[in-house]
Amino acid sequence: MKKGYLEVYTGNGKGKTTAAIGLAIRAAGAGLHVLFAQFVKGMKYSEIRALERFSDLVTVRQYGRGCFIERQAEKEDVDAAVSGLKDVRECIRSGIYDLIILDEASIAVFYSLFTVDELIGVIRERKPECEVVVTGRCAPQKLIDEADLVTEMREIKHYYTNGVKARIGIER
Amino acid sequence: MKKGYLEVYTGNGKGKTTAAIGLAIRAAGAGLHVLFAQFVKGMKYSEIRALERFSDLVTVRQYGRGCFIERQAEKEDVDAAVSGLKDVRECIRSGIYDLIILDEASIAVFYSLFTVDELIGVIRERKPECEVVVTGRCAPQKLIDEADLVTEMREIKHYYTNGVKARIGIER
Repeated sequence: MKKGYLEVYTGNGKGKTTAAIGLAIRAAGAGLHVLFAQFVKGMKYSEIRALERFSDLVTVRQYGRGCFIERQAEKEDVDAAVSGLKDVRECIRSGIYDLIILDEASIAVFYSLFTVDELIGVIRERKPECEVVVTGRCAPQKLIDEADLVTEMREIKHYYTNGVKARIGIER
Repeated sequence: MKKGYLEVYTGNGKGKTTAAIGLAIRAAGAGLHVLFAQFVKGMKYSEIRALERFSDLVTVRQYGRGCFIERQAEKEDVDAAVSGLKDVRECIRSGIYDLIILDEASIAVFYSLFTVDELIGVIRERKPECEVVVTGRCAPQKLIDEADLVTEMREIKHYYTNGVKARIGIER
């Protein structure tokens, strides 16, 4: 593997975490070692259960207490994110992972659970060939500046606006 | 499962096929049956190999002869796509799939391998609760009009422009 890049997936459209799952699976398909670290969310959604089939190659860590998008972030949310980021740093320093996905890390910064400088500091500790993927809406400008690849998932049309709730196996 | 929707992922950014893989995995994680049908591409990339671990739930079909983005589409490409679409129709009519992914089908339409009306005709034959996902750049307007959800993956920054080639386990 050559130099590892920093990829950022952001925007208000569907497909950010989904793309991250796809990246994890593709890497595992090539025999690479993956850390799938998820902030903010803590629910064992279908995609997390699916990753269990790759437990020889994909390590899943969840640092969230469940979504607080519809409530205020509490001290426990901050603590969970901060200790999560510390855990990620240890994983990065271990040097065993070829791909590290920091799912919803941009949202964690947006809600001030940790700072973008703290996040970038951890990312910079990776071994040169390690790829890092950060997802989440509202990616901070500093992270975009640091990234090699940035994709915005832009919502053009969405049935949620017609009152459809998240469906098991499709959205969660 | 409730009413199945038509989801379209398009745009020039990275993450369309990757998100489709993620959707397949998430659905499999919930025990749903998935058809992952890929047009245009025919290569056994890492993500296709990864899906083999879900062979009890995910059926993979490839109808392409390899990318022809850098060459003219030939008669064999048209034949492969047309018979692929026929195969998809049979799979849809079987009623066994809860999620059907038509990867790169928009590109197949863009290169006139089949028409958007033929594509939509097949999609409309699905059972009411079957979700359909279509990926590929340049999604035709008729398909967008038909869709319940449309996400554009927009490239904001990309290292390809710096001459980096697709890497195994990361891009392919």
